[in-house]
Amino acid sequence: VGVDFGGTNVKLGLVDRRGRVQCTQTLSTRFVRQPAVLIDAVAQAVQQLARARGISAAQLAGIGIGAPGIIDVRRGLVHELINVSGWNDVPLASRLAKRLRCRCLVDNDANLVTVGEWRFGAGRGSSELVCFTWGTGIGGGLIVRGQLYRGARDAAGELGHMVIAPGGRRCACGDRGCLEAQVGTSAIVAEVRAAVRRGGTRLRRLVHETDGRITPELVSRAARQGDRAARAIWARLGRWMGIGVANVVNLLNPDCVVIGGGVAKAWPYFAASLRASVREHAMTVPRRTARLVKASLGPHAGMIGGAVLVWESA
Amino acid sequence: VGVDFGGTNVKLGLVDRRGRVQCTQTLSTRFVRQPAVLIDAVAQAVQQLARARGISAAQLAGIGIGAPGIIDVRRGLVHELINVSGWNDVPLASRLAKRLRCRCLVDNDANLVTVGEWRFGAGRGSSELVCFTWGTGIGGGLIVRGQLYRGARDAAGELGHMVIAPGGRRCACGDRGCLEAQVGTSAIVAEVRAAVRRGGTRLRRLVHETDGRITPELVSRAARQGDRAARAIWARLGRWMGIGVANVVNLLNPDCVVIGGGVAKAWPYFAASLRASVREHAMTVPRRTARLVKASLGPHAGMIGGAVLVWESA
Repeated sequence: VGVDFGGTNVKLGLVDRRGRVQCTQTLSTRFVRQPAVLIDAVAQAVQQLARARGISAAQLAGIGIGAPGIIDVRRGLVHELINVSGWNDVPLASRLAKRLRCRCLVDNDANLVTVGEWRFGAGRGSSELVCFTWGTGIGGGLIVRGQLYRGARDAAGELGHMVIAPGGRRCACGDRGCLEAQVGTSAIVAEVRAAVRRGGTRLRRLVHETDGRITPELVSRAARQGDRAARAIWARLGRWMGIGVANVVNLLNPDCVVIGGGVAKAWPYFAASLRASVREHAMTVPRRTARLVKASLGPHAGMIGGAVLVWESA
Repeated sequence: VGVDFGGTNVKLGLVDRRGRVQCTQTLSTRFVRQPAVLIDAVAQAVQQLARARGISAAQLAGIGIGAPGIIDVRRGLVHELINVSGWNDVPLASRLAKRLRCRCLVDNDANLVTVGEWRFGAGRGSSELVCFTWGTGIGGGLIVRGQLYRGARDAAGELGHMVIAPGGRRCACGDRGCLEAQVGTSAIVAEVRAAVRRGGTRLRRLVHETDGRITPELVSRAARQGDRAARAIWARLGRWMGIGVANVVNLLNPDCVVIGGGVAKAWPYFAASLRASVREHAMTVPRRTARLVKASLGPHAGMIGGAVLVWESA
């Protein structure tokens, strides 16, 4: 079972050996956030998933959990969850393992998307891979010599806080000009607002129709309808993202770079400027080495990655 | 024997098992640049070094060569040497090996500084290390899981061409705002010229005394004498370098970051602003994981690294 802790819900999926999600469960975390209560709910959901396949939780190969935050992978500890208070040094893996009598592993959520895409998605066959998860924020994961790379203390892969525009947009981390600040959802919202202020764009009506809720999908819809301002926004985002990709390509000389996360759905609108930007900023040899692709597992990547984590560490 | 191909000379050193350079030879490449002639000169120099210790070249453990350029490590090929024409796909390793009847290996010069500092210098004991070589340009090398990391096609570690100031200073690579463009020698020269133009600095006299030859050492001399403009230049360089260091620290979560290369001698003048900048731009966990130190092997690092390369790949 792969488990994906998100900002508003926890998704669980029973994954077969071919990386296919057989059935899923979703728990809302809008009201249930205390560790003990949430762990209990997750345990029950795992049991239900197992039972639906006619087995007990103890008969699962294991449970691989991805969580956004600071994780001690070896000890299965969640030091901190991003945007969720009350999670301080929670021994998530051991508590679930004791409860369900099966192997439990915890890792960074972007790491699980990375191993999912690497084993069963767009990164298949790669041995040196970089995965960006582009959503509200930007996360990432690294495959090095055919293994997930966690660095010296499980914190490797923080692609979102690479500073690429000193003095640029304010980031949630407190710094300015991080990749996340330049292309994350808050940047998209700011760009849309600026475009609406300038006028002459369909974005104004679309924003009005959604009661002011500005999302990447909204910008994609306008771009699909041929709106120039929306297309210019995606082109700018692609250029910034290209700097982030080029920097990592120069640094690690990977054979594959995967762009995942919810915003990757807008691939048709930013891909051309992303590629042009990578061409401009990456050096010839590493640029030619790296295949640049859109993630292929969609929102299932993290769950599938959870299962991969269990198998690979068996 | 470790061999270090530089811009103006080739340095060779006989290195003992403790990483100490027993004796050295230096060949000027100012006039001799054709591959066949230079390889011949290197072979003779190796023989002399061996003879001085009473052995033949064939009795050496091997020869490890560092070259600035694009290298195919497995095949021992130099695809291209930076700033030296006429070196296209030269099978440097096999030619020297045949000539001297001993094992020869070629790698990127910054990679050899990295393994030298890692095994015998400031990075001893580290298993996840990043080394910056700060000279005319900026190079770098990575140790990952206790091994030199070369990426998918021997091009990993290009720390100098990480874009940290889009639209910033023009780089030798053609791009703008690379780390190298912001802190390499050409940036230092530009900063000194601007300071001299503004006036009120000792730099004017120092530049005049050296017939206009502006070097990092000159800025250090002025800084040592308390010159405010010179100190401000080092502070700015340290801040830019700190962004480069922070980005790599966030990305790889290393346990050690080594600053090497000729400019590292100015450590007392830029270290404080470098550290402050890393504190500002790196995330808490990876920042606390990474020991930030000055390289300790000086100009011998590359030669010692050449010897390490031979031993480690035996």
